[in-house]
Amino acid sequence: MKIVTGILLFFCFVSDTFASESIELGIASSVESAILNENRPYMVYLPPAYHASENTFPVIYLLDGDVHRFKGLVGVLESLSTETLGSQVQQAIVIAIPNTNRSRDLTPSTLTQWTFNGRVLDTFEQTGKANVFALFLEKELIPKIQSTYRVSDKRVLVGESFGGLFAAYVFLHSQSLFTDYLVIDPTALWDDNYLNTTYEANFKQPEFQSNIYFAFANNAHLGEIGRTNYKWGSDFAASIITSSNANSRQQYFENETHGTVALLAWYSGLKFLLPTTEN
Amino acid sequence: MKIVTGILLFFCFVSDTFASESIELGIASSVESAILNENRPYMVYLPPAYHASENTFPVIYLLDGDVHRFKGLVGVLESLSTETLGSQVQQAIVIAIPNTNRSRDLTPSTLTQWTFNGRVLDTFEQTGKANVFALFLEKELIPKIQSTYRVSDKRVLVGESFGGLFAAYVFLHSQSLFTDYLVIDPTALWDDNYLNTTYEANFKQPEFQSNIYFAFANNAHLGEIGRTNYKWGSDFAASIITSSNANSRQQYFENETHGTVALLAWYSGLKFLLPTTEN
Repeated sequence: MKIVTGILLFFCFVSDTFASESIELGIASSVESAILNENRPYMVYLPPAYHASENTFPVIYLLDGDVHRFKGLVGVLESLSTETLGSQVQQAIVIAIPNTNRSRDLTPSTLTQWTFNGRVLDTFEQTGKANVFALFLEKELIPKIQSTYRVSDKRVLVGESFGGLFAAYVFLHSQSLFTDYLVIDPTALWDDNYLNTTYEANFKQPEFQSNIYFAFANNAHLGEIGRTNYKWGSDFAASIITSSNANSRQQYFENETHGTVALLAWYSGLKFLLPTTEN
Repeated sequence: MKIVTGILLFFCFVSDTFASESIELGIASSVESAILNENRPYMVYLPPAYHASENTFPVIYLLDGDVHRFKGLVGVLESLSTETLGSQVQQAIVIAIPNTNRSRDLTPSTLTQWTFNGRVLDTFEQTGKANVFALFLEKELIPKIQSTYRVSDKRVLVGESFGGLFAAYVFLHSQSLFTDYLVIDPTALWDDNYLNTTYEANFKQPEFQSNIYFAFANNAHLGEIGRTNYKWGSDFAASIITSSNANSRQQYFENETHGTVALLAWYSGLKFLLPTTEN
C-alpha cells in the first residue's frame, strides 16, 4: 500500500506541478449528436470576468473552429475586451466547432460538382446538409451550452468562406437562432448565386432583426471568379442591410485576400457587434 | 491509509480529467534575477511546429507582458503563422514579461516628476533603470531562454508606450541584443524629447543593422500632448529609418489611439519583421 500511495503521490505532485505552470486558454469537450449521428467535439473559452462574477455573458459560436482559429479569435477577443485595448468589446464566451465533414455541414444545397461559367471549381462526396447542421446547433449544441454556462441572450455566429455561406443561410432561414452574425468573405459563388437567388425568391418585404456584419476581401487576383464572388456577396449584403431593422454593415478589405481577411474581420466585426457602449 | 489513498485517487482523477480537457496556451515560469534582486515571472508560448520538428524558432520578447496581452499577441501570431491566415508569418516562440516596477524598468532616465510644457504629466517613485533591466535581459533572461528552448538567432523585442520607449532605448544603446524591434506608440514625450536628444548627441553617422518597425496612433484628441508625442516619435523613427541598413518602416494608424493601436501594430509589425517569404 505504501508503494501504491507513493506512486499516487508522485503522479499527484507531477500533475500539480504541471497544473500550476500551465496557462490554460480553454477546455475541450464534446456532445453526442443524435441529429448528426456522430460525436461532435468543441472548444470553450471563458472570459476573465466569468469566474470573477456571477454575470451572464454573450456566446460566440465559431465555425471551422480548429485550435488555431480558436486561439486567434480568442486572442483578438481577449485583447479587445480587456484593458489591453481599452475594453472596447464585451467579454464573451467562445465555442469553437471543428469540422468533421465541412462540405456536408456548411453548404445549403446539394452539388456533387460545383461549377462557375462551365468550369468545375470543386467536387464533393457530400453537400447540402446545412439544414441538418443548423438543427444540431439549435436542438443539441446551443441547449447544452445554455445549460452548462452562464450565458446571456446574445449569441454571435462567426463563419468564413463556406462558414460564411452557412451563416448567411442561417440568417435567412432561422434568423432568431442568433442575435448577431459575423459573415466573412462568404462563398457567394455557391450553386450559381444561391444566396441572392434564395433571397429574391423568398423575401419580398423582409424585416431582419438580427445584427449582421459582412467582411469582404480583395480576390481580384483570382480573376472573374474573385470579382464575381465579391459582386454577388456584396449585392446580397446590400439587400440585407437595406431591409434590416438592426445594426448591419459591410466592409471591404482591399489589402486582404480570401485567405488572410479573417483577423481584421474579427477585429472590426467584434467591435461592431459587441461594443461596450451603444453605437 | 485507505482513506488517504482514496483522497489521493480522487485528486488524481480530478486532476487527470482537467488535464485531458485543458487547452494549453503556454506555461508560466520565473527566473531569480541577481541583477534586479527579485524573482521575475515570465510566460512561454511554443508554436505548433515546435514539438513536431527539431527546428529552431525565432523568439519574440513581449514587454508589459501580462496574461491578456500574452493571449492577444499569441492569438495574432498563431493565426498569422498557421494556415488560418495563409502562413504569412514565421512560427515563433513568445516570452511575455509582466511588470514588477514598470516606471523603474522601462524608462531610460531619472525623473521623479514628468512634465511637458510646464504641466506635470505624472510622478513616480522610481524611474531611470532601463539600463539595469536591459542587463537583466542580456545576462539572465535571454541566456535562460536560449539554454531551455530551440531558438534561432532571430530575437524580436515588442514594446508599447513606456515599453516602446524602452525598446527604442535598447535599439540605440545595445542594438545587437535583438535582431528586430517592434515599437508601438512609444512615449516620445519622456524627459523632454529624450529619444531625439539622445540620438542627435550620440549618432553622427550611424549604420543600424537591426530591423525596426514603428507603429503610431492618432492621439490628436489629447491636444498638444498627443500631437507632440506623435511628432517627436515620428521624427525619431524617420532618423532611424534614414540611417538603417536593415528593414525599417513607420506606419500611422489614423483610426486607433494610444490605448487601442497594439493589435493592428502586432498584425502589421509581425508581417513586416517575420515574413515567411523575403520582402
